[in-house]
Amino acid sequence: MKKNERISVITKILADHPNQVFSYNYFANLLDAGKSSVCEDIAIVREAFLKLEQGRVHTFSGASGGVIYYPEVSAQDEKRMLLEIADLLMQPQRQIHGGFVYYSDILSNPRYSQNIGRIIASKYLEAGLDYVVTTETKGIPAAMEAAHYLNVPVVLIRRSNRVTEGSTISVNYISGSSNKISTMYLSRRIDLHQKKVLIIDDFMKGGGTAKGMVSLMEEVGAEVQDVSVIFATRHPLEKLVAIFNPLLIMDDSQIGEGKLTVEINQASRHD
Amino acid sequence: MKKNERISVITKILADHPNQVFSYNYFANLLDAGKSSVCEDIAIVREAFLKLEQGRVHTFSGASGGVIYYPEVSAQDEKRMLLEIADLLMQPQRQIHGGFVYYSDILSNPRYSQNIGRIIASKYLEAGLDYVVTTETKGIPAAMEAAHYLNVPVVLIRRSNRVTEGSTISVNYISGSSNKISTMYLSRRIDLHQKKVLIIDDFMKGGGTAKGMVSLMEEVGAEVQDVSVIFATRHPLEKLVAIFNPLLIMDDSQIGEGKLTVEINQASRHD
Repeated sequence: MKKNERISVITKILADHPNQVFSYNYFANLLDAGKSSVCEDIAIVREAFLKLEQGRVHTFSGASGGVIYYPEVSAQDEKRMLLEIADLLMQPQRQIHGGFVYYSDILSNPRYSQNIGRIIASKYLEAGLDYVVTTETKGIPAAMEAAHYLNVPVVLIRRSNRVTEGSTISVNYISGSSNKISTMYLSRRIDLHQKKVLIIDDFMKGGGTAKGMVSLMEEVGAEVQDVSVIFATRHPLEKLVAIFNPLLIMDDSQIGEGKLTVEINQASRHD
Repeated sequence: MKKNERISVITKILADHPNQVFSYNYFANLLDAGKSSVCEDIAIVREAFLKLEQGRVHTFSGASGGVIYYPEVSAQDEKRMLLEIADLLMQPQRQIHGGFVYYSDILSNPRYSQNIGRIIASKYLEAGLDYVVTTETKGIPAAMEAAHYLNVPVVLIRRSNRVTEGSTISVNYISGSSNKISTMYLSRRIDLHQKKVLIIDDFMKGGGTAKGMVSLMEEVGAEVQDVSVIFATRHPLEKLVAIFNPLLIMDDSQIGEGKLTVEINQASRHD
């Protein structure tokens, strides 16, 4: 394989497998090339990713020398991606009688769920997470994408007890939109004891669902690293969970008059 | 930017945006390079993808000349990916009392959902689809991945009527696992009239859920191109839908004695 082709292959593999270590030997064998050639190729890929602001290709030497691709998002790209979603949310036709906002189509669009997932993942790339945890339904796509970029599996909490989950552990929680007590269920087949998890939820108002998820994680002995939220309402200021990290802040206090503002949560980014 | 770096950038962009047309001018502007250099670069990327069996980079000339990446899966890779999932499903500890199989963790793992999504997508890359349609919950990750590779959005059908979906259209269907009549709901905010859709469902036994989805698509005037199923049971042979296309066939007729076989559906691949 020619040098140019090797560079294309390495780029493809790193792009498809973020946050995963590949040894130099892996590429040397795959490409039938010397280790020093592979090192040179990777240096070129790193430079290209840097120039395109597509994240960081990190190499490390030694016996277990290799390369890992951290799919970090630049501050500028993050802002552009989040503003695009904020603008969609503020479209007046999205407002639903009762003070709700329709956004199911946004989170079900791979374009937006990928951007959201990548932004969330880039905050926890080196946190040593074992799992991403989410509750059905609308947050699943972004959680899957975040898990892809973090290179960990997703644990799915159900809102009803399904026979296909086998034996389950449940907790009760106060469901925000209906303000009544509901139950969430987790299959006992997943061992989360002492596992580091990132909770992802699509929407937070009072924080009842997130609190339920945190309680469930405590029940199974998992260590919650953070609660990442796509949209949080500004009010109530005090949520039922102490720690949470929203990407976008929604002010729906005047939604009765058709007014809704959505802003980027500046505090969520630390460069 | 040097030629080597240009090749890395083009590879990254095509890999991240399957089934999407990019003009030569787009790359020429982005890379500050001549159109003929970009053409040469793309030819090298095409060759590398071919050698790695990572799909087909298709170029077309003329005023609107450009390039598109079809993320086709080789027969060998498809077989390897599906056998890996079949082996997981046949693990005895996955069997749940009542004749069910636990597979929620498989479909929630980005590694497997990506492979499944890519295999499904590669069968419909040039079908001119407008949407992928799925019903919550377990099939969502694979449906999102298929939609990513097809470059279309996902339409999510709900199993309960949620206030956040606004006004909905509903149909009744016979739920397979419980064999009782249930209802599925679709937000009226999505216009599917005369749109070409691919239905994706995670599991099919009798075909009740799939039939419900087909009926719902008829109600809204969508054109169903196919019903793609991840796992279908061999029995009953006659399903409630006439056309469906499973990736894996599960024989659970002796699951009472702890026996389960899972095979690749050879008919689903046409090379």
